[in-house]
Amino acid sequence: MTNHETHTTESRLQRGIRALAQIDGEAGQKVVDSLADIAPDFATYLLEFPFGDIYSRPGLDLRAREIATIAALAAMGNAAPQLKVHIEAGLNVGLERGEIVEILMQMAVYAGFPAALNGLFAAREVFNHRDGLASAA
Amino acid sequence: MTNHETHTTESRLQRGIRALAQIDGEAGQKVVDSLADIAPDFATYLLEFPFGDIYSRPGLDLRAREIATIAALAAMGNAAPQLKVHIEAGLNVGLERGEIVEILMQMAVYAGFPAALNGLFAAREVFNHRDGLASAA
Amino acid sequence: MTNHETHTTESRLQRGIRALAQIDGEAGQKVVDSLADIAPDFATYLLEFPFGDIYSRPGLDLRAREIATIAALAAMGNAAPQLKVHIEAGLNVGLERGEIVEILMQMAVYAGFPAALNGLFAAREVFNHRDGLASAA
Amino acid sequence: MTNHETHTTESRLQRGIRALAQIDGEAGQKVVDSLADIAPDFATYLLEFPFGDIYSRPGLDLRAREIATIAALAAMGNAAPQLKVHIEAGLNVGLERGEIVEILMQMAVYAGFPAALNGLFAAREVFNHRDGLASAA
Amino acid sequence: MTNHETHTTESRLQRGIRALAQIDGEAGQKVVDSLADIAPDFATYLLEFPFGDIYSRPGLDLRAREIATIAALAAMGNAAPQLKVHIEAGLNVGLERGEIVEILMQMAVYAGFPAALNGLFAAREVFNHRDGLASAA
Amino acid sequence: MTNHETHTTESRLQRGIRALAQIDGEAGQKVVDSLADIAPDFATYLLEFPFGDIYSRPGLDLRAREIATIAALAAMGNAAPQLKVHIEAGLNVGLERGEIVEILMQMAVYAGFPAALNGLFAAREVFNHRDGLASAA
Repeated sequence: MTNHETHTTESRLQRGIRALAQIDGEAGQKVVDSLADIAPDFATYLLEFPFGDIYSRPGLDLRAREIATIAALAAMGNAAPQLKVHIEAGLNVGLERGEIVEILMQMAVYAGFPAALNGLFAAREVFNHRDGLASAA
Repeated sequence: MTNHETHTTESRLQRGIRALAQIDGEAGQKVVDSLADIAPDFATYLLEFPFGDIYSRPGLDLRAREIATIAALAAMGNAAPQLKVHIEAGLNVGLERGEIVEILMQMAVYAGFPAALNGLFAAREVFNHRDGLASAA
Repeated sequence: MTNHETHTTESRLQRGIRALAQIDGEAGQKVVDSLADIAPDFATYLLEFPFGDIYSRPGLDLRAREIATIAALAAMGNAAPQLKVHIEAGLNVGLERGEIVEILMQMAVYAGFPAALNGLFAAREVFNHRDGLASAA
Repeated sequence: MTNHETHTTESRLQRGIRALAQIDGEAGQKVVDSLADIAPDFATYLLEFPFGDIYSRPGLDLRAREIATIAALAAMGNAAPQLKVHIEAGLNVGLERGEIVEILMQMAVYAGFPAALNGLFAAREVFNHRDGLASAA
Repeated sequence: MTNHETHTTESRLQRGIRALAQIDGEAGQKVVDSLADIAPDFATYLLEFPFGDIYSRPGLDLRAREIATIAALAAMGNAAPQLKVHIEAGLNVGLERGEIVEILMQMAVYAGFPAALNGLFAAREVFNHRDGLASAA
Repeated sequence: MTNHETHTTESRLQRGIRALAQIDGEAGQKVVDSLADIAPDFATYLLEFPFGDIYSRPGLDLRAREIATIAALAAMGNAAPQLKVHIEAGLNVGLERGEIVEILMQMAVYAGFPAALNGLFAAREVFNHRDGLASAA
């Protein structure tokens, strides 16, 4: 389990920085940077607990973890910026666009059609942004 | 794709009944039965839309679908009976107990520690119930 | 508008007591009584603002007001005791059982199937309790 | 019951298209169109289940159904675009502006003053947009 | 207790106007003004119940009350405009910026990291706006 | 700042165990114990992050922290067991019963009357349990 084998030698913070880069890429680093002037300790906690502790655990691969996160954030419906970051993260760890669309559609069953719709519109924004970057390259 | 190949010959209701039996087993049938005296049409909708339409779609396997559902219900934190049904369903479609525990722990990051704790206690109840059934057999 | 015509002579509290009795009946009085030892002032606020101010306003009849309340409480899904009180209240102000079932079923669209299911099971409990009282009479 | 009498001859999709046009008008069609490139199947489900199944049911008129929907969306407070669509829909099916304002004010009791305030500001936006269209005609 | 001693001579509305000015300052008055054309009665209720009744009660000082309000609004995560008004209000009644940051960070434990992050970004906006006003003076 | 001064010598876990004992007393230990068979790692995280990191921070005293937690849990309304633990914790760190009642009543403004009522009933249960223990002593 690559995520886990260096646990003994790395600190939680180092492990979190590595996991954040792998999962959220630039979007994650932007969140961390944006905390610098208001709550720098919170940036540390964010790296240490969610990424250094939770996402670095063996027992569930990153693909499954992002399915869970996308579903939860779409269902709660009150964290649009984080949902977009994790749709991006889902693509980073190997989910296909069509799979993300399936997860979001399924949320209509558990959180209602508005939650599913708002999740799908967030996904469209992320996908279009990626396509724009690709065509601009 | 076995779930999907019979779409043209089966009705949505038939497909939903088959999907419900495969996913939720007895617990799902109990929910359907319990609607008989108050809202029998709603039992039909429940079979047709979530199970006949959504869970029967190709594009995301049932294991991934149950990860999404368990995460969403634990994060929302206001549907304890349905969370237990889907922890059971997760086991039915191939999730291991340890994987379900990982999903629920991860919800601490997105919905807070109380949501994760209440999800874990629901899982313990489901697991213990299964063990009781097994040891009674 | 009978609810409103005595506004000038009645206090908000008196108006609220009258509205609570008309709408929630005994169940409402039990809630007020249950606050006596922990927060008696809150019982006064409950009578004055929701019942003396809001439910006593002209511009929307009590039947429409209870449709709104039942829908909101079922959709939020975190206030089971109050949902039952207002299913009872809906019946008190003229909603038929079948209409309440329609409202609750519709919540599947906006808040998901679990919210609708839990609302329907709450309704069944209220209806059965009423039938028990009727058959015991 | 006009909504229901053609059930046997119309498909769920046809019935849903007709109900959506009657209830949500242009705003509904825009939502359906906006799904075309990301999740066309979800547009079909949206037409079939909420509109073809639920809103087309006899047993509760459209005016009562929109009271329930406006109340639920305002109370949940996490689906602003859909709340606006249904304030518009409420006007389409015969609710008066003052009645919609009453429903939203009442949500202060069940979901708090912020939910009511945000609902009222959404209503003001919809009303002003309508007035702008009227004065531009 | 200065907030309370004039209860007998002031009306609830007068007391609410005074409490709103003390707590929310200009931001509160803007909310009241913005209700004038859509729901003027709701502006009265807002002054009377939250401010004239609740915030004017002895038994908990305004500093403690704003800690509770900031925590609740950040945790619910669906009332961004009101959260900003109450971060401002917290500063008005004596909370330090660092204390508000602590409250918001703590919400990661109870409502998840996205709720805490969105609360912190709201605080940064309020703090920056204050600094801009100060430097412009 | 007594909570903080030993940071360099204590581990996060040790600090968390100490903070949990001080704040939640027996109720906290019970939660930790109840995780032993289902998710022992989660008990460690619970001690380390909320208690070892957050509650042990200087910058906000424990009384203020419990005001925030009680408010948040009552407002969210979906974590009854944790709300009771923290009403108990509030008493442990110096909040008076009357102050807790004020916090809960105030939640009517931000999360609605049902959230406040259910919070008050939770408080009554905790207070009565304490009185029972006292009279049994």
